[in-house]
Amino acid sequence: MITNSEEPTAAVLLIGDEILSGRTQDTNLATIARFLGTHGIDVCEARVVRDVEGEIVAALNMLRARYTYVFTTGGIGPTHDDITTDAVGRAFGVPVDFDAEALALLEPRYPPGEFNAMRRRMARMPKGATPIRNSVSTAPGFQIENVFVLAGIPLIMRAMLEDVGPRLRKGRPVRTATIAARVGEGRIAADLARTQRGHPLVAIGSYPMFSKSGPIVHLVVRGRDGDEVEHAARAIEESLARGGITSNRVAD
Amino acid sequence: MITNSEEPTAAVLLIGDEILSGRTQDTNLATIARFLGTHGIDVCEARVVRDVEGEIVAALNMLRARYTYVFTTGGIGPTHDDITTDAVGRAFGVPVDFDAEALALLEPRYPPGEFNAMRRRMARMPKGATPIRNSVSTAPGFQIENVFVLAGIPLIMRAMLEDVGPRLRKGRPVRTATIAARVGEGRIAADLARTQRGHPLVAIGSYPMFSKSGPIVHLVVRGRDGDEVEHAARAIEESLARGGITSNRVAD
Repeated sequence: MITNSEEPTAAVLLIGDEILSGRTQDTNLATIARFLGTHGIDVCEARVVRDVEGEIVAALNMLRARYTYVFTTGGIGPTHDDITTDAVGRAFGVPVDFDAEALALLEPRYPPGEFNAMRRRMARMPKGATPIRNSVSTAPGFQIENVFVLAGIPLIMRAMLEDVGPRLRKGRPVRTATIAARVGEGRIAADLARTQRGHPLVAIGSYPMFSKSGPIVHLVVRGRDGDEVEHAARAIEESLARGGITSNRVAD
Repeated sequence: MITNSEEPTAAVLLIGDEILSGRTQDTNLATIARFLGTHGIDVCEARVVRDVEGEIVAALNMLRARYTYVFTTGGIGPTHDDITTDAVGRAFGVPVDFDAEALALLEPRYPPGEFNAMRRRMARMPKGATPIRNSVSTAPGFQIENVFVLAGIPLIMRAMLEDVGPRLRKGRPVRTATIAARVGEGRIAADLARTQRGHPLVAIGSYPMFSKSGPIVHLVVRGRDGDEVEHAARAIEESLARGGITSNRVAD
């Protein structure tokens, strides 16, 4: 456990039938996780729920009580299946209405007469929310308390993270060292477990892969103290060398 | 809501720090969802949890009580960070011990003397579980009641699904029709909402994309009655044509 009680934590809530049907391959979780990682904030849990209001409300209320921040993606567009804004309003028990700033952002984007009722839906926010700007499509997301409501389209979601960054309390970033070795992880597992026991301030993960030339394992050391990470990484390298196994450091 | 009380349902529980850190891009959720889709089983929820026993136990017990089936991925290898088997045992309140069939599968795979204590860990299962075979690495997953415990490596996970298929109660498969149109979804949103109201047995999803030549939207009709899906798809096409918008069907 490298997340202690002092560090901010986060959860990600992905909203959308298309992810659960397998039609859409989500990439937002990894993008958000890496972005928060640079700010020293660990994503501790993620959920994917359907476009069903009750499901969104239940998941959001659980997650926002448990973690420092919650990031949602999806369901804030202009169509009937975009129900995230109303669900967030219901989760917080507040009404949803048009936001003047969001209207002012959106209206100039459309030719005269094309800012129709459905498009205006994208300017609705729960009471107390503040817009999250995006430089790609103009349509804003919003923040309400510790919850950041972002678009589902990856390009737009990433643009919104730019506006979110300055609002976050930062933690100590996680440092990592990754060692690649051409060996089956089972052969070195006992030594790895011993190294993990000797270095309780880091987490050592073992990620095997298969290649045509035989097994490869990536051993990833993660921790908030760079010296501890380096000590554990060297202990792994020395243990591999004692077993006659060559290894090399790789970038994450 | 196209999932009714007669159809089997499923949840997916992805286990692993590497997914939540953004180091690993998960693809198992989409693979499992598409596989179950061909069997008429809807994935209704997914969760990603850390390599922390209490987190795995809590999520698994919630999901297995709520859905017909639960599929977990990750954490069943030979290393110290592979804790899924013990967590599943604890979730079910049963002891974990070596499985004779799993030992018999694994032992011949290793040269004499290399089937060490850590590798033998892969033959441990909660009491009452049955092995799930895989043709790629031999190391089995296992089924206990309505829970299927699968590998995290995509190639191995997919091989395990082959052994899982015959064990599942099938539902009526979801039929889909996908219409592509070169239009911003906000322009057609009111018509779409009307079509959705007129076809309550299908779910219409609107998935916008951006291209250099302008906006594109994919309108996806999903339902268990093929005729209803086709009727709704035609209603959308007619509505688009009335607005002077050309469209075409695309494969999913």
